[in-house]
Amino acid sequence: MAKIPSSCYALCLSASIVINILLLTRQYWGWNQLSWSQTAAAEAEAVASISCSGHGRAFLDGMIVDGKPVCECNTCYQGPDCSEFISDCAANADGGDPLFLEPFWMLHPASSALLVAGWHRMSYIFNDHTYISQVLVNHIRKVHAIAKNAVTDGKYIVFGAGSTQLINAAVFALSSENSSYPTSVVATTPYYPLYKSQTDYFETSHFEFDGDTSLFKNNSEGLDVIEFVTSPNNPDGHLRKAVLQGPSVRTVYDHAYYWPYFTALPAPVDEDVMIFTISKLTGHAGSRFGWAIIKDEDVYERMVTYMSQAEMGVSRDAQLRALKLLDVMLKDDGREIFDFGYKRMTDRWKRLNQIISLSKRFNLQEISPQYCNFLNKIREPSPAYAWLKCEREQDTNCTAVLRAANIIGREGRVFNADSHHVRLSLLRSQDDFELLLYRLNELVTREYGAYHQSM
Amino acid sequence: MAKIPSSCYALCLSASIVINILLLTRQYWGWNQLSWSQTAAAEAEAVASISCSGHGRAFLDGMIVDGKPVCECNTCYQGPDCSEFISDCAANADGGDPLFLEPFWMLHPASSALLVAGWHRMSYIFNDHTYISQVLVNHIRKVHAIAKNAVTDGKYIVFGAGSTQLINAAVFALSSENSSYPTSVVATTPYYPLYKSQTDYFETSHFEFDGDTSLFKNNSEGLDVIEFVTSPNNPDGHLRKAVLQGPSVRTVYDHAYYWPYFTALPAPVDEDVMIFTISKLTGHAGSRFGWAIIKDEDVYERMVTYMSQAEMGVSRDAQLRALKLLDVMLKDDGREIFDFGYKRMTDRWKRLNQIISLSKRFNLQEISPQYCNFLNKIREPSPAYAWLKCEREQDTNCTAVLRAANIIGREGRVFNADSHHVRLSLLRSQDDFELLLYRLNELVTREYGAYHQSM
Repeated sequence: MAKIPSSCYALCLSASIVINILLLTRQYWGWNQLSWSQTAAAEAEAVASISCSGHGRAFLDGMIVDGKPVCECNTCYQGPDCSEFISDCAANADGGDPLFLEPFWMLHPASSALLVAGWHRMSYIFNDHTYISQVLVNHIRKVHAIAKNAVTDGKYIVFGAGSTQLINAAVFALSSENSSYPTSVVATTPYYPLYKSQTDYFETSHFEFDGDTSLFKNNSEGLDVIEFVTSPNNPDGHLRKAVLQGPSVRTVYDHAYYWPYFTALPAPVDEDVMIFTISKLTGHAGSRFGWAIIKDEDVYERMVTYMSQAEMGVSRDAQLRALKLLDVMLKDDGREIFDFGYKRMTDRWKRLNQIISLSKRFNLQEISPQYCNFLNKIREPSPAYAWLKCEREQDTNCTAVLRAANIIGREGRVFNADSHHVRLSLLRSQDDFELLLYRLNELVTREYGAYHQSM
Repeated sequence: MAKIPSSCYALCLSASIVINILLLTRQYWGWNQLSWSQTAAAEAEAVASISCSGHGRAFLDGMIVDGKPVCECNTCYQGPDCSEFISDCAANADGGDPLFLEPFWMLHPASSALLVAGWHRMSYIFNDHTYISQVLVNHIRKVHAIAKNAVTDGKYIVFGAGSTQLINAAVFALSSENSSYPTSVVATTPYYPLYKSQTDYFETSHFEFDGDTSLFKNNSEGLDVIEFVTSPNNPDGHLRKAVLQGPSVRTVYDHAYYWPYFTALPAPVDEDVMIFTISKLTGHAGSRFGWAIIKDEDVYERMVTYMSQAEMGVSRDAQLRALKLLDVMLKDDGREIFDFGYKRMTDRWKRLNQIISLSKRFNLQEISPQYCNFLNKIREPSPAYAWLKCEREQDTNCTAVLRAANIIGREGRVFNADSHHVRLSLLRSQDDFELLLYRLNELVTREYGAYHQSM
């Protein structure tokens, strides 16, 4: 064997030493130079790496078995890794859990991760003596600007624990304290049931829920009224305007769904009181974070008072989380997430329509294609919910008809509508949606088969 | 120069290659093997490394100047690094901001850090279809067990956005819906002002705030009453028992301060409805997280309904944060944090007493040394607040007397007491406390000087 010359050794040694120095530098001065945050980061990555077969996920605060959190499976899946489908499981199209966006965040783990230090915002107040992060307020204004869906200039922004709490805060803020009659809270059928249940629950001598707007159309007595206008509407996805007008009418616009995923955005909305929620923007229903955009200073102050009396402002942890999520959106002007969600929701609506169009027994709401200010084009509908109708007269309980076919919807009566209607949620996880389509397909195919047999 | 032999090169090269391999291994397979969590971790460490001279701190969601968050200074400090003392600044002893524990968390950055993945708990519900983390419930039970301050066995636990929200939830849950009179909500003077302000604000036909318990001592008519018992009491730190008894009386124990920092714990409390908050346990007032321990299933269900109607449960981000903080406490049976806080609070009370004992004009509440079940010994008092009295008859506005000496306290009238009393907060930051002592010392020294001059 030829002897390797010293010069060759010297060269290799030099190269090796350079690599050592580079590695050391990288380790101690580069990205990897982490100290106290390492354990938390490693913990989170370990939990994220637990495989749940795409039908579930493990959480940092999940139940621990054998020293590590276990998979939490999507509805209808089970087993340690969620790989077993529960064959007779009902398709759940009930609640409005916005998990259609969960895969988006899983695709963006780095930009959406958040490390909270143990001493983060322990105080009751921010540095400006409020309960509201002004940095987050600025982010919210920017998100509306890029979505082109709402005018925030010159308006106040107040936070609440989801739109849920802001709805009640608005009722307190807008109801008249000087009138001898309680202010009537109303909405147009079909309407989101919380307006009634929450207003009933918290009823004071200053307000009460009084049902449908139609009863107040000829409000000649000038009674104080708060009208909730949900646009696009939950359950039917239609863009809505206020029905009632006049000096004694206050309108609250619930714009939870006024985002590119769910509707055309004909123009930026510019109302006196508008409510939004992160639940239907980033999909983080669990964070319980929403905001109201308020024109009038006095109304704003009253809503701040509500939040102060109710719970001394929204959790700073929820505010920090919201900031991080909106930060991700702002980095590319929201193009990626809006595009992701829009494609997913239009695809779902199209596939649902294909099935229901084969049926004579069932029908879906019609939403016309409309120009969208954000997409800069006329777009097809993609509502958050299907507002399904059982067309047969004898199907007096449409919910039960679906339930018999192993589909869980939310009955029309909950929305003050008739029982020929059922709301089917389209914004849940892909697993839930696929099973819904599968069960609906079975149902419609049976109808079709029965039709052919009867011929 | 002597030529280095090949064998020496070979040896050095081998050693260098081994080091290369070790470094690479460490980087890619060891602790440093972090991928998507790295950016967030580095961001948090960068913010934590911003120096604010020990008189402030920078936050991840702070205002950004020149690309990085700026220091947020403690009261009375300013400048880019909070190093400038504002000489004529008033000592703030007003609110109950529990920042005395902030240094504890800064001393434990690794164990208290939390990395939240972008897709963490997006759903409205936990896997068991509730709004409440059972893992956190278990942690809360364990914390009470190690503090030996409350019996949780066989009881239900419900979460709220701080004790603030739970107070209102308890009023809703316990007020009678079937009575022709509204249930009276009462407390014994001096009492925490929120009981009145919040109950007034949310007043329904089922309850109203009716002032001091004394008015109901001879409740011969059996009127429905909810009595708030704050033990130890805010503002005066005394351990309290219920004043009212009888079949129509419901008692809510606000035990926010029933922790080793603030009081002797004579025995584990074991009441029907008990409220606690993380604000006075870990010091995280900003997280807005509290819990109620409930004996009766029906009352528990009613409080769950309140939380559901009010905001669909407490933010999962706040729940996750609470879990991480309690996790740190559980690791050493709470010894370190309880010891840290107890020492700090007893030291503060001692030093305050030394100053006030020199004065004839001012007096502090007396709290007797008492046996503590947790410390297993008789302990000196260390209340969260000083309940200061201006003894001179002409000092009819004690708050103004202190204000003139550049001290901000909370006036006695706020607690339904007389204006000879002022509450001074002792659980704020060390800076706030030191300035309070300094200003009080000035005030007492002037009194002493005046006394000697008049001799």
